[in-house]
Amino acid sequence: MRRDARRGQGGGARRIAECRPAPAPAASVPSVPVSAGPHTAHDPDPARPPARPSFAALAAAHGDRKMEEYGRFLALLASSLLVGFVSVILSLVWVFHYREGLSWDGSAGEFNWHPVLIITGFVFIQGIAIIVYRLPWTWKCSKLLMKFIHAGLNTTAMILAIVSIVAVFDFHNASNIPNMYSLHSWIGLTAVIFYCLQLFLGFAVFLLPFAPVHLRAALMPIHVYSGLTIFATVIATALMGITEKLIFALKNPAYSASPPEATLVNCLGLLLVIFGSLILWMASRPHWKRPPEDNAKILSPIGATPEGTEVESTMTNTSNADKSDLRSNTEAARKQNIKFDEAGQRSTM
Amino acid sequence: MRRDARRGQGGGARRIAECRPAPAPAASVPSVPVSAGPHTAHDPDPARPPARPSFAALAAAHGDRKMEEYGRFLALLASSLLVGFVSVILSLVWVFHYREGLSWDGSAGEFNWHPVLIITGFVFIQGIAIIVYRLPWTWKCSKLLMKFIHAGLNTTAMILAIVSIVAVFDFHNASNIPNMYSLHSWIGLTAVIFYCLQLFLGFAVFLLPFAPVHLRAALMPIHVYSGLTIFATVIATALMGITEKLIFALKNPAYSASPPEATLVNCLGLLLVIFGSLILWMASRPHWKRPPEDNAKILSPIGATPEGTEVESTMTNTSNADKSDLRSNTEAARKQNIKFDEAGQRSTM
Repeated sequence: MRRDARRGQGGGARRIAECRPAPAPAASVPSVPVSAGPHTAHDPDPARPPARPSFAALAAAHGDRKMEEYGRFLALLASSLLVGFVSVILSLVWVFHYREGLSWDGSAGEFNWHPVLIITGFVFIQGIAIIVYRLPWTWKCSKLLMKFIHAGLNTTAMILAIVSIVAVFDFHNASNIPNMYSLHSWIGLTAVIFYCLQLFLGFAVFLLPFAPVHLRAALMPIHVYSGLTIFATVIATALMGITEKLIFALKNPAYSASPPEATLVNCLGLLLVIFGSLILWMASRPHWKRPPEDNAKILSPIGATPEGTEVESTMTNTSNADKSDLRSNTEAARKQNIKFDEAGQRSTM
Repeated sequence: MRRDARRGQGGGARRIAECRPAPAPAASVPSVPVSAGPHTAHDPDPARPPARPSFAALAAAHGDRKMEEYGRFLALLASSLLVGFVSVILSLVWVFHYREGLSWDGSAGEFNWHPVLIITGFVFIQGIAIIVYRLPWTWKCSKLLMKFIHAGLNTTAMILAIVSIVAVFDFHNASNIPNMYSLHSWIGLTAVIFYCLQLFLGFAVFLLPFAPVHLRAALMPIHVYSGLTIFATVIATALMGITEKLIFALKNPAYSASPPEATLVNCLGLLLVIFGSLILWMASRPHWKRPPEDNAKILSPIGATPEGTEVESTMTNTSNADKSDLRSNTEAARKQNIKFDEAGQRSTM
């Protein structure tokens, strides 16, 4: 999917941290009667013609097929948001209607922060963070801005996960329950540690401008794989936690008698699996990737290939990157990008 | 990765269900001092020069980089086999050393078939079935043979999973324990049903010769995705089952007191996560895919593109396929394959 040649010249390197206005359609691109997206409210140049969502322009250029794909993506996105939202609501119904509510006093109410924050942060917000690059209306925003959003959502999820673990340790200590004996706790803590490492490495390698292109290229498939694997592991751990809690908490009637609380929380577990499956489907479809940046064209000498690179774009979008270094890196980055594309692994999760 | 032109002419369409001998290296391909693989024992033509593993020949042609990748793949394969094998052993140690052993009389010994058969069949064998196309020494075997192996391993896993569920139902009924109340049972039974559907649909669409190329192309990404998602869900369900069993079975000392059995089975759970992660990594690296078949070259008219197609190969490898239909489908299949390659989704899991 090649974007309009005029596009990069209009924004890109100058407005690195903003959502760029979408380009006026090229002569060969038919006009599409689609209303402007919400991001056009930030258009810094009101004299320009009304901006259109870049995905819609692409869809017009590439035919109804693309629009159909767009519709499918939106349907899946709406489904996953609905399933994730209902999961959060069910976790709240669980702790407020069937359990002791929420508190921070060492009681069961403090423990209850654990499922609520894990489902809200470590499942729902992490899931959204995974697919945030794939939202078509963000493709006119700079890659750097999207990276900040991706990192910000993941940082939020990490903080909520850590707070939720503190809540469990507090509750256990106040109730003289041993810590870290269950498989749930072993795998859960491992997942949190790997998540923190993933966030730290992602920040150091892909957000800060210091990592060389070849390192980014080498680490991106690992970053993508470990992100998805940690996400799946978190959901598996949540299912183990639900199982533990229902066995320990339901005594009269017991879990095996299937009281309403058990049915509700089992449904919550099923929703978590469905949410995870939807996110992994959206994250692994190659045709829903964010299109490559075309900043290489801006920075490389005239006559150089216009091929944009994902790896490169993560550097050219960075305001304090050394542009002379970037120029010399352009050809290497282009080659790397071809390798990336061959491998089907770009940094556009 | 394009294979030697002489290769398809030597075997392919004539010996569809056998492992073909690897080609003698082309003039431009330097000799590689690698010993013949185990499959050369089946070479039907002993007068030929000694066969070499096709991957080694490719590696020589494409440089040390390929050999390095081969070494990495072998290291990961050995690790996953080791981890899977140790998991099966630990499940046996669990039931024989800490529990009631194995029997089929409605007692706890019958229940114990459940973890043993799930870990052996539904985790270990399914994991191997997922990556069987990626074993480089099988690339000289016909695609149809590999499909039979893939389907056979999955069928074995399905049978073991069903027997293991029957064991639990028998045990529950004999002990007056309700069935199907836990989240483990809900998700586990759903996974088994989806697995059976996946196997049935895979057989009907990709193994039998009746499905048209466009249907195979459309369903392959879904087949791959659902296979991996079911596999991950099975591991998550196993972790829930381990959690349930340890809580129910360990009473004096309890699970929370971390007796040796708890530590051993927690380690088993960790190994299952590691095994799943290794399989998913191997299954999702594009450069470890089985190379496309070159049968299109054999069946298409002289001068036609030599590009092999995965979709097509699943038909040309079928002995009773109508070859006149195949000829007319070659161009369409080639286009489909290009679309496949663009999407990074081929039928070479």
